[in-house]
Amino acid sequence: MINISFPDGAVKQYENGITALEVAKSISEGLARKVLAATINGQVWDAKRPIYSDASLKLLTWDDGDAKSTFWHSSAHLMAEAVEALFPGVKFWVGPAIEKGFYYDMDLGDRKMTEEDLAALEKKMQELAKKNSDYIRKEIPKEQAIAYFSEKGDEYKLDLLQNLNDGEITFYTQGDFTDLCRGPHIPNTSFIKAIKLTNIAGAYWKGDEKNKQLTRLYGITFPNQKELDEYLAMLEEAKKRDHRKLGKELGIYTMDDDVGPGLPLWMPNGTIIIEELEKLAKATEEAAGYKRVVTPHIAKESMYLTSGHLPYYADSMFPPMEMDGEKYYLKAMNCPHHHKIFSAEPKSYRDMPYRIAEYGTCYRYEQSGELFGLMRVRCLHMNDAHIYCTKEQFFQEFKAVNDMYLKYFKIFGIDKYVMRLSLHSPEKLGQKYVNEPALWIETEAMVRQVLIDTNTPFIEVPDEAAFYGPKIDVQIWSTIGREFTLATNQVDFNSGRKFKLEYTTQSNETDIPLIIHRAPLGTHERFIGFLLEHYAGKFPVWLSPLQVKILPISDKFLPYASAVKQSLRNAGVRVEIDERNEKIGKKIREAELGRVPYMLVLGEKEMNENKLSVRRQGKGDIGSIEVDEFISNIATEIFERKSIE
Amino acid sequence: MINISFPDGAVKQYENGITALEVAKSISEGLARKVLAATINGQVWDAKRPIYSDASLKLLTWDDGDAKSTFWHSSAHLMAEAVEALFPGVKFWVGPAIEKGFYYDMDLGDRKMTEEDLAALEKKMQELAKKNSDYIRKEIPKEQAIAYFSEKGDEYKLDLLQNLNDGEITFYTQGDFTDLCRGPHIPNTSFIKAIKLTNIAGAYWKGDEKNKQLTRLYGITFPNQKELDEYLAMLEEAKKRDHRKLGKELGIYTMDDDVGPGLPLWMPNGTIIIEELEKLAKATEEAAGYKRVVTPHIAKESMYLTSGHLPYYADSMFPPMEMDGEKYYLKAMNCPHHHKIFSAEPKSYRDMPYRIAEYGTCYRYEQSGELFGLMRVRCLHMNDAHIYCTKEQFFQEFKAVNDMYLKYFKIFGIDKYVMRLSLHSPEKLGQKYVNEPALWIETEAMVRQVLIDTNTPFIEVPDEAAFYGPKIDVQIWSTIGREFTLATNQVDFNSGRKFKLEYTTQSNETDIPLIIHRAPLGTHERFIGFLLEHYAGKFPVWLSPLQVKILPISDKFLPYASAVKQSLRNAGVRVEIDERNEKIGKKIREAELGRVPYMLVLGEKEMNENKLSVRRQGKGDIGSIEVDEFISNIATEIFERKSIE
Repeated sequence: MINISFPDGAVKQYENGITALEVAKSISEGLARKVLAATINGQVWDAKRPIYSDASLKLLTWDDGDAKSTFWHSSAHLMAEAVEALFPGVKFWVGPAIEKGFYYDMDLGDRKMTEEDLAALEKKMQELAKKNSDYIRKEIPKEQAIAYFSEKGDEYKLDLLQNLNDGEITFYTQGDFTDLCRGPHIPNTSFIKAIKLTNIAGAYWKGDEKNKQLTRLYGITFPNQKELDEYLAMLEEAKKRDHRKLGKELGIYTMDDDVGPGLPLWMPNGTIIIEELEKLAKATEEAAGYKRVVTPHIAKESMYLTSGHLPYYADSMFPPMEMDGEKYYLKAMNCPHHHKIFSAEPKSYRDMPYRIAEYGTCYRYEQSGELFGLMRVRCLHMNDAHIYCTKEQFFQEFKAVNDMYLKYFKIFGIDKYVMRLSLHSPEKLGQKYVNEPALWIETEAMVRQVLIDTNTPFIEVPDEAAFYGPKIDVQIWSTIGREFTLATNQVDFNSGRKFKLEYTTQSNETDIPLIIHRAPLGTHERFIGFLLEHYAGKFPVWLSPLQVKILPISDKFLPYASAVKQSLRNAGVRVEIDERNEKIGKKIREAELGRVPYMLVLGEKEMNENKLSVRRQGKGDIGSIEVDEFISNIATEIFERKSIE
Repeated sequence: MINISFPDGAVKQYENGITALEVAKSISEGLARKVLAATINGQVWDAKRPIYSDASLKLLTWDDGDAKSTFWHSSAHLMAEAVEALFPGVKFWVGPAIEKGFYYDMDLGDRKMTEEDLAALEKKMQELAKKNSDYIRKEIPKEQAIAYFSEKGDEYKLDLLQNLNDGEITFYTQGDFTDLCRGPHIPNTSFIKAIKLTNIAGAYWKGDEKNKQLTRLYGITFPNQKELDEYLAMLEEAKKRDHRKLGKELGIYTMDDDVGPGLPLWMPNGTIIIEELEKLAKATEEAAGYKRVVTPHIAKESMYLTSGHLPYYADSMFPPMEMDGEKYYLKAMNCPHHHKIFSAEPKSYRDMPYRIAEYGTCYRYEQSGELFGLMRVRCLHMNDAHIYCTKEQFFQEFKAVNDMYLKYFKIFGIDKYVMRLSLHSPEKLGQKYVNEPALWIETEAMVRQVLIDTNTPFIEVPDEAAFYGPKIDVQIWSTIGREFTLATNQVDFNSGRKFKLEYTTQSNETDIPLIIHRAPLGTHERFIGFLLEHYAGKFPVWLSPLQVKILPISDKFLPYASAVKQSLRNAGVRVEIDERNEKIGKKIREAELGRVPYMLVLGEKEMNENKLSVRRQGKGDIGSIEVDEFISNIATEIFERKSIE
């Protein structure tokens, strides 16, 4: 018998050699029908692989990220089976799961795969899936594996085998398809109910352009048609909401060859959004007791040698500028500069917690091929701050940061979010993780407790912490269901020592502060990119570059329009008049297209009654209203930073 | 007879060979007594040098900058005469006038000059000045000059003679002292009435540390004792107000070796001032119809080749970063980035004037020896903006910019200021100046007219314009009378063409906009450095990092103090409580030292009556007042950005 321990702490005894699927069945048949894989001692395993020793076990169903990866990896095998059926003689390289779906790289010889082939391949996959073939795992001696692929004439798999040794080699077979594969896989092809092949691309073998170009076929699958339909609808909607398209149409940002790739220039409309976000951040941070600082964008090499960013992080930094016999670097993060502010004046327990904030602009090197609109850039305006606190203050400080995140989510109508809590791995203390076992356990427990106390949805990920402490990665979903990584929130019990930061305790000793790195609004670049998609460019009034457009029916009403404009400006509203001699229908259409939240149509009746005919963007005419009442309403809407209903 | 034309346009005939001093005498004896030198056709001349051809003439008296330089250069000769009297055998290198005063570099052989010698030297100078010796100019053939200094054994003057040719060599003699000197000089030593030798320093011959170290003796002189006394008092006061000293004491900024020289880190208190200045600038610019933009701190080499900053300005830029086979530079100015924003979307006459503003951070290379506190830095947060306008709009736009300067001067209590209008020189068109003769004349006239219309004090400086248009340098004086160069304000009719900027005119043609570069608040670095001295750290309430300090007499009054603090915070006032268990006298002293504008002393009486005992920094107790009334008063004082009375 072996002992199996469960996530809730329960431990049960089972026959030696039992599988996760059998364990699931012993709990409930319904559960077993949903199990796609399992984690055994933290490692993802086939649900049908026997377990021969005591282990901790977690059953994985579709909602688990690891289950999705396994599902998609198995779908790649299913796709390969279909390709082999329709393109006999095809040779396969690798076929991993990716963030959304999977791909397989293949050598089709002289043949070419076209869009027209995709429907047939999808049909074949459906047909194969319905055969309910099990994914069968088999350990194979290296000699036998080589013999198998030699006979098949598959130089690609033979290449992969070179780096593998006996005991590491497994084959997976489903139906007529056998692949060299580490696994794991789902139990059976029948789970794969909805299939879409999404793209055919070229990819050099091993990513090297000197090698042969292979065909990369992308696909995505789901356990039911509804989810696939939703996914495809989301993709369609995302295309309309593409932040690069909207960013140009709405005058948010521009790129320029002479400035350089990945370096957005913020146009006047984008700058209004930046300033509104900064106003929000500054007000929020001031109320939370942060002080503000401003630091240079460069520093000497010695600073980054102290912080440890050099040499380890050098690839992500811009190259140095050599000056006066010294190397200067553009900052890739604000922390070292902030540490210098902390240490510029002596600190005592009275000064703690010491919270300093800066919308600091950092520069990071990304391969030009990786750059993507505002989502992947080289210039990052970061909603940064560092909190220096005592161990006793840590829980409260971390909770306050978490509360700030939740407050922001509410303001921006972000309903779906998950905090990914990355933990250390005890056996890697002193190597991958700073060697402070007690502090790790203590701070991880406190961070976890904060998330529990605040009902914040979170998942725990072992062995993915930062070197200097546990961290939280914040994942958010836009209104159309697309996932974004917004920001990280990190505990740091290493930099304090490196930068010789200290404070005098109440008992007149010196101690090193704990540091929290936090950036709830991430960077302007990524966050505004997210917001463009999230709102489809239809920003809530407080964020709209132009809040009101006044549309006089004819020139006759320009004086009245001017008076209304002045009253609105006095109330702090961003307003313009469409003074052109155009038909009112055209004026309305263009203001709608420009995503102006409120359009005020002014004609004879409105002027005589000192009223306004109000149109709400996307909603049409919402009635006539007195000027003062409209101003009071919109001023409140702006002041309260109301979301769109 | 020759024709002499005067600055007011008048032309008079005089005997050939007349001197400027004789011309002055022909106007009035009183005037002649004040003439120190003259400009003849724009060049500074001895007042007693004969004029042999038609010329334009301007008489220079003490108030002219060129007269001061001449006066101080003559004083350097007087000092040399005194040194020669007390240190026989001394050899002199060069002795120029500087911004304030003069120095002379000398070789004293084995002897050393000490502070103790200065009084004797001053006395000697006084004695020599009273001899009323004329400064006598004499042209000398090179051979004779070499013979003179060879006999004297003066290798320094012989070295200088190497680079001079016959016809370029003049000697000046006053009393017993003769020097190789280009001149010009004042007429007579009797003008020098007040003398102070200020410093003895070392200076390597020709600035090369491999050469012999010479003694550099500094001094300053005035035409009367009162001005010297005022100058020395100003120096004394400036020492107390040294922005580096105050900047540290008040937590405004810090420097750090690991960040690098000339790169201030703004501490929380300095950042509050930065943010207040930016709020002022943003509100002012918004009201004036500016839009805001945000641009990266770097750009590719190609941008600066287009702008012409490379290669000509390369020495003032940071060295490049080489990346992806391209060179990237930190921006030393914001204009090229702004031009890219202008050209990112097509423009028509309807979009003009197009005004874009950014507190852009630029980086400029300065020799490390030139760096000085906040006054000479490598990182500049610039109150920048560019106005793109038509020729018809130019006058109005330039006037609006000038009005903005005047508005700011009022807010900051800057009573003394001068605009230095730099003009082109017609004969250098196409070389030093862009070849647009009509535009130069037109824009210079418009700029001059703006200054006249607005009663703005200004001086005109020929042949000092920028390459691309006339410019104004803004000189301001702090309350203690020290001069600062704040900003420049430039017309640019060249960059539009270089960057292919254009707009569609009303008649559907394309034209190139005129550009105004303007930065009324200069850089945060220099302006806050100026303000620290100007206010001696006693900022007006709206700019004070901490506006109110609440000083409870004992712990008993902490709850009342907290309630008062909360009310003040709600009204947007920056307020703290001194919660320490210290004597009230000590609390007051420390708040005074911290330059907190208002101190509120709270005790039994105040609590019972819901009042506050108010102390104003530097003024002591100003009486007891109701809480609400105090809040209303201070909120108004902040909102109106009131100066200190």
